[in-house]
Amino acid sequence: MGLQVWEKLYSDVAKALKPSPIRELMKYTKKPGMISLAGGNPDPRIFPVEEFQEASAIIGERGRDVLQYGTTGGYEPLKEFISEWMAPRMGRKVSSDELLVTTGSQQVMDLLAAVLLNPGDAVIVEEPTYPGATHVLRNRRASFITVPCDKDGMRVDLLEEKLERARAGGKEVKLIYSIVNFQNPSGSTLTAARRKELLEVASRHGIPILEDDPYGHLRFDGEHEPTLFSMDAEGIVLYACSFSKILAPGTRVAWVVGPEEVIRKMIMVKQGSDLCTSTVSQALVYEYCRRGHMDEFLPKIIDHYRKKRDAMEAAFRKHLPQDASYETPQGGFFYWLTLPGMDSRALFDKAIDEGVAFVVGDAFFPNGGGAENVRACFTFAGADELDEAARRLSRAIQKMKD
Amino acid sequence: MGLQVWEKLYSDVAKALKPSPIRELMKYTKKPGMISLAGGNPDPRIFPVEEFQEASAIIGERGRDVLQYGTTGGYEPLKEFISEWMAPRMGRKVSSDELLVTTGSQQVMDLLAAVLLNPGDAVIVEEPTYPGATHVLRNRRASFITVPCDKDGMRVDLLEEKLERARAGGKEVKLIYSIVNFQNPSGSTLTAARRKELLEVASRHGIPILEDDPYGHLRFDGEHEPTLFSMDAEGIVLYACSFSKILAPGTRVAWVVGPEEVIRKMIMVKQGSDLCTSTVSQALVYEYCRRGHMDEFLPKIIDHYRKKRDAMEAAFRKHLPQDASYETPQGGFFYWLTLPGMDSRALFDKAIDEGVAFVVGDAFFPNGGGAENVRACFTFAGADELDEAARRLSRAIQKMKD
Repeated sequence: MGLQVWEKLYSDVAKALKPSPIRELMKYTKKPGMISLAGGNPDPRIFPVEEFQEASAIIGERGRDVLQYGTTGGYEPLKEFISEWMAPRMGRKVSSDELLVTTGSQQVMDLLAAVLLNPGDAVIVEEPTYPGATHVLRNRRASFITVPCDKDGMRVDLLEEKLERARAGGKEVKLIYSIVNFQNPSGSTLTAARRKELLEVASRHGIPILEDDPYGHLRFDGEHEPTLFSMDAEGIVLYACSFSKILAPGTRVAWVVGPEEVIRKMIMVKQGSDLCTSTVSQALVYEYCRRGHMDEFLPKIIDHYRKKRDAMEAAFRKHLPQDASYETPQGGFFYWLTLPGMDSRALFDKAIDEGVAFVVGDAFFPNGGGAENVRACFTFAGADELDEAARRLSRAIQKMKD
Repeated sequence: MGLQVWEKLYSDVAKALKPSPIRELMKYTKKPGMISLAGGNPDPRIFPVEEFQEASAIIGERGRDVLQYGTTGGYEPLKEFISEWMAPRMGRKVSSDELLVTTGSQQVMDLLAAVLLNPGDAVIVEEPTYPGATHVLRNRRASFITVPCDKDGMRVDLLEEKLERARAGGKEVKLIYSIVNFQNPSGSTLTAARRKELLEVASRHGIPILEDDPYGHLRFDGEHEPTLFSMDAEGIVLYACSFSKILAPGTRVAWVVGPEEVIRKMIMVKQGSDLCTSTVSQALVYEYCRRGHMDEFLPKIIDHYRKKRDAMEAAFRKHLPQDASYETPQGGFFYWLTLPGMDSRALFDKAIDEGVAFVVGDAFFPNGGGAENVRACFTFAGADELDEAARRLSRAIQKMKD
């Protein structure tokens, strides 16, 4: 009888809920012998476990503050650190009122969606894009307008027409969502010229941009592009970043920077979501950073991940069929494969049989597509496993063709 | 120009956002010399700082798991601990699929609201009730039907009529929200007889109950009442509890127990909200509990808070005017004062001038009311400050009468 009661009461959101495709993969990736190229997980082998544990000294030193409720905006010492540390990327030191610490950057999208979206409002997303973003946007009842990506990031040249068509169709477009560096999943980086153009189009149409940048610090080759935030003279860019990929996702500490008034609204929504991000987590991250470990650790992981990227590239060259195509990512976590004629959902089952997991392309296409695509993460599996992973994947591809 | 862009795009939710009344008080309570009876904060003087810091050994021991993304449902060792530890209150050991770890129990309401509420749907809440709950419900566009509380908790005898009237008015009622023990703010506890009746009415009308129980462990006198969850044969009760009041709110670790299918839906919403609760926080809480500190610490804080409750009672008897009325709470954090003829908003300003902060009654009445009421928290201020706090409050009351 109980369940009947509940079933009659579910919201429209609940009725449409689907599990997050990447989260659901965890059951496969924990199988013994499986090599996982699936989740976008950092390499646990290089977590700075000792340094992070030592940082827990702050609990002893500041326990009365650290164990208490914190302000919703975030732990002030951490905010000061972030503001100072990020100043070169942001173009200036942002003020405390422009910065909100969140429970992972997943929460940035959740809060922003609450602040901007009425049911049915549209969000511009890249195609392909991060399914965690589209998952929460869907839960906030958004619709999606997709703009394709190529090796230089979002095809900004198509944006204007998409916006005009949306407007003509009566759609209210509320946000442009872009993962600017080493995009998830495509690996591409928006060029400086496209960044400029993106800002111009957004400004002309009066649509703000969420610049999501969890991978931006992890550049293996070449020079950093300027952030959209630093190029934005008008206050239409929100910039989100996270400690998940550069320190440890288990902390769930990320942040967003933007106009004070928008941040203030996001804070009021966050008061209802979780009051504040774990002060314990925030204090540990702060203390770890204050001791200089972040600056020390970052070159190490960049070097470590560059080697893995190179190992995956070599393995793909060696094992993948001739018609498989991909770009070499200059940073981040992912390769994005196009396998002409392939049904990557069917391929997935074969790959699991062979002992390798990836994310199926369609997860990244909120309006459908991606059948020929595979996202392969090179950071999580061991460097010595990547060759074998590519071998298994190519065996699965071969079986599909047989 | 930037802000104009944003202003045109805010959602209906954003346009109606108000700051959480209790959170906003923090600026007053940090003034030098101020005695705060405002926030529902535990006493930082008795945080188990040393034991909690020692528990961080788990980062060194299990760093690769603890620093990584966790499953959305929660850190499995912690879930096992909670299930075992709570079995006497729950009536049985609940399974892992019936339990979800959340980022504070604030998140329980947020997730459940997403699962149940379409805009305009109604929630039954006690009057007065916790403003954190009504804040997030309002952000999820709920409406409220209030049922008054007396010294024995919710006036369940009025519930049936309220439900029938709502139904007759075409309102869809989706949830009954009750803080069953040492209610926030009234301090009252729902009697066993009323619990039985509440379950009967809820079952008859097919409406689930969220049993919110952050204070349940903190009983100073008498015996525990059975949980609604343990009395529920039909699976219509969700039970929420938290480590915030019994260990440390800075961890942001709480949990909810309920039917697997409902928990599964809440997990899918949480995947979009924050992926998972800080694994670092969860692991620290787990290790602290595993070492036996929870069972050791709990009698100490109960004893500590009982003394403070007694000190506040004595101070109120000594200083408050004859016409002030209140019940003695058998546990929890709060006194709820009724000051006939008083405008507690105006009183608040006078009280701040005198150097004492409280929460104004109207914060607890989502449909209006509470002008004569004051919530006074006795756990946060020093035991030696409570007499002075009551003296200052009574001086402010006197000034209102002058």
